Amino acid sequence: MVEYKEAALDDVFVALADPTRRAILARLAQADARVTDLAREFPISLNATSKHIRMLERAGLVQRTVLGREHLLTMEAAPLAEAAAWLAHYRQFWETSLASLDAFVTGRRAVARAKERK
Amino acid sequence: MVEYKEAALDDVFVALADPTRRAILARLAQADARVTDLAREFPISLNATSKHIRMLERAGLVQRTVLGREHLLTMEAAPLAEAAAWLAHYRQFWETSLASLDAFVTGRRAVARAKERK
Repeated sequence: MVEYKEAALDDVFVALADPTRRAILARLAQADARVTDLAREFPISLNATSKHIRMLERAGLVQRTVLGREHLLTMEAAPLAEAAAWLAHYRQFWETSLASLDAFVTGRRAVARAKERK
Repeated sequence: MVEYKEAALDDVFVALADPTRRAILARLAQADARVTDLAREFPISLNATSKHIRMLERAGLVQRTVLGREHLLTMEAAPLAEAAAWLAHYRQFWETSLASLDAFVTGRRAVARAKERK
């Protein structure tokens, strides 16, 4: 079960590691689309579009419904919840590091203001 | 700025798309470590460990401090906040799809119970 989850997370993060695939997901979040619609809307070939879609399907992020000669694509957001849950374990760390950065910037500003006053 | 952010997100998602790299991050979240510590703790070669660490550094998730002959590694969680922010845009979608699944399962159970009663 743990190994299955790890492999599923690999596929989701790989699928998200490309700006075109992220843009395809954003597009499908607006409305379902056919493969040919996406190939027309994105500045890439039909072949490249198909490859990106296969990686999204592999991660379970896109579902394909074959209607005669049309392949309709739907976004499936559930695997993103797994990725978000993994990241959530680290929230305390980035909140701490962003708070430190904030304190550092505030401190530098105070020093700068103190210098201006001299 | 957008392109920079997109490229940074690519690096973060690529870095997270491997179970060993996720485990290295989880280890560094506990405490800083030397490259040799990680190579000893994980069932992979020193060379493989170094490669994984370089991918984590490239994504800004690990910082290396050279102290004489020792290379001390520290987790930097801030880039994870960017990845979490990207995923958060899709929260409404996965919450909807998980709610649909929940309703489906509840419905199936009700049908099963009704059949049992017959």
